[in-house]
Amino acid sequence: MSTYATAGATRPGRPRVIPRAASAAAPRDEILDVAAELFVNRGFAATSTRDIAEKVGIRQASLYYHFAGKPGILAELLELSVRPSLEKVARIEQECPADVPEAALYLLALVDVETLATVPHNIGKLYRMPDVRSSEVFEEFQPALQELTAAYGRLGAGVVSGPVAATVGLNQLGGLLVQAVEVVIRIRSGGDEVARVHAQAIAATCLRICAVREERIALAAAAAEDLIPLLGAAIT
Amino acid sequence: MSTYATAGATRPGRPRVIPRAASAAAPRDEILDVAAELFVNRGFAATSTRDIAEKVGIRQASLYYHFAGKPGILAELLELSVRPSLEKVARIEQECPADVPEAALYLLALVDVETLATVPHNIGKLYRMPDVRSSEVFEEFQPALQELTAAYGRLGAGVVSGPVAATVGLNQLGGLLVQAVEVVIRIRSGGDEVARVHAQAIAATCLRICAVREERIALAAAAAEDLIPLLGAAIT
Repeated sequence: MSTYATAGATRPGRPRVIPRAASAAAPRDEILDVAAELFVNRGFAATSTRDIAEKVGIRQASLYYHFAGKPGILAELLELSVRPSLEKVARIEQECPADVPEAALYLLALVDVETLATVPHNIGKLYRMPDVRSSEVFEEFQPALQELTAAYGRLGAGVVSGPVAATVGLNQLGGLLVQAVEVVIRIRSGGDEVARVHAQAIAATCLRICAVREERIALAAAAAEDLIPLLGAAIT
Repeated sequence: MSTYATAGATRPGRPRVIPRAASAAAPRDEILDVAAELFVNRGFAATSTRDIAEKVGIRQASLYYHFAGKPGILAELLELSVRPSLEKVARIEQECPADVPEAALYLLALVDVETLATVPHNIGKLYRMPDVRSSEVFEEFQPALQELTAAYGRLGAGVVSGPVAATVGLNQLGGLLVQAVEVVIRIRSGGDEVARVHAQAIAATCLRICAVREERIALAAAAAEDLIPLLGAAIT
């Protein structure tokens, strides 16, 4: 088809190995998107930079212009899944009204559901893949993950009731809460869209795990709602 | 080393490609154990029946005597991670005292934590691996997984309070509870042993997700304790 030749001719600076359907995304974002799809569906180890470049429709060399190879792309994808939540933790803790401390955990859960619900191709799944977990990149990603888990643990500890502290143990609480929020990954894997009702249900579940009473959960939900605009986050 | 030759000579009926440290396990169990380790750590797609046979120290043909290849082994490993829990659901529902319906969900969680905590090499991880999820075997395994999720949903629905039904939605409840119990996989991934206190904390968390009050959780824990011997389960 002559369309291919034309497409090539109109973009002399970016020779395309395989022309791709018109895309408005910047090449860097396009690489991330395609890599996310391949890593998640085919596996990290089983995907080569060549596979990614071919599917984007650029030369392998161009890919290396944007990223330090596969590890560089993986590092950025992992960051995408945690950084937007992590960046808001300090603000959430600052802005949370003192009389409704439960709002902080509720809001962190809302924000984190949003992050996991909107990352391309459900990349939260990468955490669970053995070839990702055994990579050096994942090792370097640990502090960020631990920081987020610690934030959940801290906000949970602030509202938890006695029996929970006794049965769960505060060092486990962060992990339990992160695990509850990661139900988003399961929902997306099942093919469903993550809606606002899911986000609210998951945030309420986090407070229930801390044995917060239902009337306090309702207060927390209302207070969190008021704080959303301060975060500059577009919570679905 | 002559040890190798001797080892081979003393077992003429089972030629060993690579002699292995003395093992009391039956060959079938040994194959399952080695396959679990390789699937989880190296990946399902990246492991061949040859790798498994070599590591067990048997010929590939012997492996096929026990299993219908890699899919057959995967099917059995997946079953191991869900069947022991699923088999006890009916008994749990029958035996649960009518005045403490919360005990049924608590006990299912205890049993399921036990299952996930004792399966070899944390094979619950297999659920999350893309090469496993895209296999036909995983497709065939879906009904068992769905049956277990439905059991959680049903037992949860029996004790849930109004606000949870309103915010979470009963069709999501099973998934939330399964997700909470699967924190076991996370604990094991982190290198920790799953202890009795973890099991109790997770079971209590399941009831909290249903907004069951703390005094009822204590009752459920005590009632579940009494039921354990009836299940013939060795709960750690």
